Amino acid sequence: MTYRAPINDILLSLNHGAGLAAAVEAGHYGDFDGDITAAVLEEAGKFASDVLAPLNKVGDEHGIKLDNGKVTTAPGWPDAYQRWTAAGWNAVSGPEAFGGQGLPLAINAACTEIWSASNVAFGLCPLLTLSAIEALDAHGNDELKKIYLEKLVTGEWTGTMQLTEPNAGSDVGALRTRAERAPDGTYRIKGTKIFITYGEHDMTDNIVHFVLARLPDAPAGTKGISLFLVPKFLVNADGTLGARNDIHASGVEHKLGMHASPTCTMTMGDKGGAIGFLIGEENAGMRCMFTMMNQARLGVGLEGVGIADRAYQQALAYAQERRQGKALGHKGDGMDPIIVHPDVKRMLMQMRSMTAAARTICYATAVALDVSVRAKDAKVRADAAARGALLTPIAKAFSTDIGNEVAYLGVQVHGGMGFIEETGAAQHYRDARITSIYEGTNGIQSIDLVTRKLGANGGASVWALLDELAATIKQVETSNDPAFGTTGAKLRDAHAALARASKWLLERLAAAPNEALAGATPYLRLFGATLGGCMLAGEALAAKAKGEAEPQRYVALARFFAENIAVQAPSLEKTVTESAEAVTGADAVLA
Amino acid sequence: MTYRAPINDILLSLNHGAGLAAAVEAGHYGDFDGDITAAVLEEAGKFASDVLAPLNKVGDEHGIKLDNGKVTTAPGWPDAYQRWTAAGWNAVSGPEAFGGQGLPLAINAACTEIWSASNVAFGLCPLLTLSAIEALDAHGNDELKKIYLEKLVTGEWTGTMQLTEPNAGSDVGALRTRAERAPDGTYRIKGTKIFITYGEHDMTDNIVHFVLARLPDAPAGTKGISLFLVPKFLVNADGTLGARNDIHASGVEHKLGMHASPTCTMTMGDKGGAIGFLIGEENAGMRCMFTMMNQARLGVGLEGVGIADRAYQQALAYAQERRQGKALGHKGDGMDPIIVHPDVKRMLMQMRSMTAAARTICYATAVALDVSVRAKDAKVRADAAARGALLTPIAKAFSTDIGNEVAYLGVQVHGGMGFIEETGAAQHYRDARITSIYEGTNGIQSIDLVTRKLGANGGASVWALLDELAATIKQVETSNDPAFGTTGAKLRDAHAALARASKWLLERLAAAPNEALAGATPYLRLFGATLGGCMLAGEALAAKAKGEAEPQRYVALARFFAENIAVQAPSLEKTVTESAEAVTGADAVLA
Repeated sequence: MTYRAPINDILLSLNHGAGLAAAVEAGHYGDFDGDITAAVLEEAGKFASDVLAPLNKVGDEHGIKLDNGKVTTAPGWPDAYQRWTAAGWNAVSGPEAFGGQGLPLAINAACTEIWSASNVAFGLCPLLTLSAIEALDAHGNDELKKIYLEKLVTGEWTGTMQLTEPNAGSDVGALRTRAERAPDGTYRIKGTKIFITYGEHDMTDNIVHFVLARLPDAPAGTKGISLFLVPKFLVNADGTLGARNDIHASGVEHKLGMHASPTCTMTMGDKGGAIGFLIGEENAGMRCMFTMMNQARLGVGLEGVGIADRAYQQALAYAQERRQGKALGHKGDGMDPIIVHPDVKRMLMQMRSMTAAARTICYATAVALDVSVRAKDAKVRADAAARGALLTPIAKAFSTDIGNEVAYLGVQVHGGMGFIEETGAAQHYRDARITSIYEGTNGIQSIDLVTRKLGANGGASVWALLDELAATIKQVETSNDPAFGTTGAKLRDAHAALARASKWLLERLAAAPNEALAGATPYLRLFGATLGGCMLAGEALAAKAKGEAEPQRYVALARFFAENIAVQAPSLEKTVTESAEAVTGADAVLA
Repeated sequence: MTYRAPINDILLSLNHGAGLAAAVEAGHYGDFDGDITAAVLEEAGKFASDVLAPLNKVGDEHGIKLDNGKVTTAPGWPDAYQRWTAAGWNAVSGPEAFGGQGLPLAINAACTEIWSASNVAFGLCPLLTLSAIEALDAHGNDELKKIYLEKLVTGEWTGTMQLTEPNAGSDVGALRTRAERAPDGTYRIKGTKIFITYGEHDMTDNIVHFVLARLPDAPAGTKGISLFLVPKFLVNADGTLGARNDIHASGVEHKLGMHASPTCTMTMGDKGGAIGFLIGEENAGMRCMFTMMNQARLGVGLEGVGIADRAYQQALAYAQERRQGKALGHKGDGMDPIIVHPDVKRMLMQMRSMTAAARTICYATAVALDVSVRAKDAKVRADAAARGALLTPIAKAFSTDIGNEVAYLGVQVHGGMGFIEETGAAQHYRDARITSIYEGTNGIQSIDLVTRKLGANGGASVWALLDELAATIKQVETSNDPAFGTTGAKLRDAHAALARASKWLLERLAAAPNEALAGATPYLRLFGATLGGCMLAGEALAAKAKGEAEPQRYVALARFFAENIAVQAPSLEKTVTESAEAVTGADAVLA
């Protein structure tokens, strides 16, 4: 079956769960009035269903080929990419001065979900281009922008992010790729990068690599890293392509999933060094990299949402069609569709509600990032920046954890058929697996949440968010809608648990930081479960208030999440606050 | 890296967590005194490390080939199988009258874990033979036993279980394969079976199929199913192989994992019908099938344990070797092995403690099944049978859920390398995925637990077990060992939560069975977490009492499990008892 973008769910999430409508209303989005949103998403959904979704399995089965430094993507992929960029999809949120449409990141976030749902390995390529655009736009000089930015914004060329080396993964400061100053102000780069997504491909005639490297006199660690733009083909003064640069794909990985996305080993310097152009200042590459990575982290979170929704849609369709057994009380012959069985309903509701929660968390992150640059008021921008920073690791890690869990359940709903590759459920399961690893493992995200986001300002960002969530919970309770079941009570318990765990972590961060780090992963889960639960409840309230056709659908969804996922919060709190010794004292067991 | 069987952990689990030593002490095992256990397991571990473990990756990469009805397994596999049977490993727990060694099922359970850990796709073949032996021994007539049983016990021939058809999976009563009576007392079988594990292969010169089929005049549903023995080659009076029977592999599946294990579509009747021999009575096949399936369910649970342990060992070795970042407070140059990071320790402890808990639950199931047939006293046998029946769905579902979760974490510990197939972590992740589906999905196990095991005798089996667990918790509390941390409190909370949830389910089973079914999956998880936590605590107490070299290792492990896994029990209780409406009322959302 193909994929259908759930436009109504997306719009409710974007406008009400994630707060886009309120931000527009408050004037934080300038001229953008939101009228265009639905139309853009409808068109994105159509393109995704018609063009990208059918190529998802093709890409998985064909994979990519590397031959003599050239990568061939799966049949139909280059053509689909051309059509996709020609329709303007790469430029949705790009800067208008460079050929972009200047639409909010929030709109593009919804589109990213749609590309990921229809074909995650395809959507991964522009995701990295988007990060490259962000870094070049923020830190590049005018000359580099003039040559490269529009081509990247339109998608005529794609971008890569080249951080990882065999001995420098999570610890990027350990990288060894060398950059030497050339007399003409450019640099010569030599070294090997691994795990470079779309490092080489046949979908565009140039690729713009963004490479982290170290100058000969650079300080050790992350303070000695610089960012360079290294084009596959150099660009002549007239904009035409010039000489082939000294960077090439020397290998591709054989991976569990994402078969259609080439993951390359990139070698620079076989012929004296790749010509590189400095982005920003020497030794200031980490800041540029974080600009790239935050965007990419949100994007990967949206991959989690997209894969989850695709897996859900497929499992739902199967459960409605496949007949096995009978519902309790069913009289007579014949079997019922398996969706009548409570255990199957539970799986499907878990899939759908977790997907919806992750979606809104990701969209809310995008809205915060939008407001942080678009709002007129400096305080509003600063608050939004803090909110975006706080939400980014949750958007990345919680959503990708959920992408994996939902894809797991998607296989389970299919029973034995789920294990058979032809069914397609297994592809989602395989593809999802990388999302909790790349762009900073989910463990790294959790540590970022605890140390930099919670810890940075004495918890102020967290308390501000908790105040908003408390208001939503109060609204649920005062709504007196019996269809909410115990949603209010569950969310109140979760909120209190999150507040206590946050305070405990802040205290431990100062007194015994290893104990805080030991609780980072369950804390992020606790945060996501509480936040997601409140957001879904908020959406349900909004659906009721604005007279949606079937508001009870959203109430039932929020209720399920609260009673099955957010309900775990008190246990997660105890895991954070009472198991640190069991972790830090693990050496005796693990020796 | 290869696999090393964790003999000390296994012995502690088997003898003390699972209660083998106490049962031997009480005389329930007759002549068996347990002296041989360690030696058998040491030898099994050696064979697994030397012969089976190196073939695991070979099998995954080569897979199997079907050509003109013949299946070729991966290089080295037939030879390994010959060596394995020659060493007597297939016959460990087989009946002595038919070439078996008559050792306890509990010993064979530990061996099954070892085979599964070293090479799960290999171990799957004898697992099904074992089930076939059980069914033939229990229900076959003397003539069939004489011809087939010894060959199956020694492993000279392998067995298959043929239940599933395209429209009869979980709902086995829907099967359509036909059996017609022949004048000579045999039957002619016609039909198609799917998902038949090792339905065809080149490791033995005969294969004995156990096929469920329906007689022309059979009642509808499960009451009209009969079990037939259908040999690949008929057997002459002198025991030599005769004519090729009319059953053959017409297809093999392309699967997510278990590549080395042929999953066949079996066609019977192309030449008039396969000759089949009735096992037991006509239309009484379901009872025979349950005999086969209970054994197989425990075996699949042990696959979960085995895969988990293999994934853990590999992740631990990687974490000890791979250097990234520095421990907090680390001064000077260089990076630390990633095992110093609390988040990595958490993952490894979670892997190890969950594996240990699942192991003991499986072994305890085997001990109960042993005692149910070996004990002299009828009351002891009956109680043990009830215990075994109660534990079987938990052993199957909890252990395989854990197998998947641990394999997931194993990939995560490897970071980006985990997604690369060459690393091997991904194979465990792929292989594990089927274990929560086959031999009855884990949803089916949960429903079995709630309706047949909890519900059957008014909860008596559950209360008896809860009483034993309460005694263990009391011992933890009175031990006053500070190394237990909050283990006692966590287990007491879990125990109370399990008791309340059990009572609630019993009440709902009578009043509103769909609400009980809605809570089946979280109930099984709650049961496993509580049971596993108490068993690990019991093992730790035993390690201390008998003066193990490092009893604190086991205390630390039990503590981690209690504070991180068993701690989820109160939330799971609420999910069982307070979310049923959210499940049964899901139709509005899922429509």
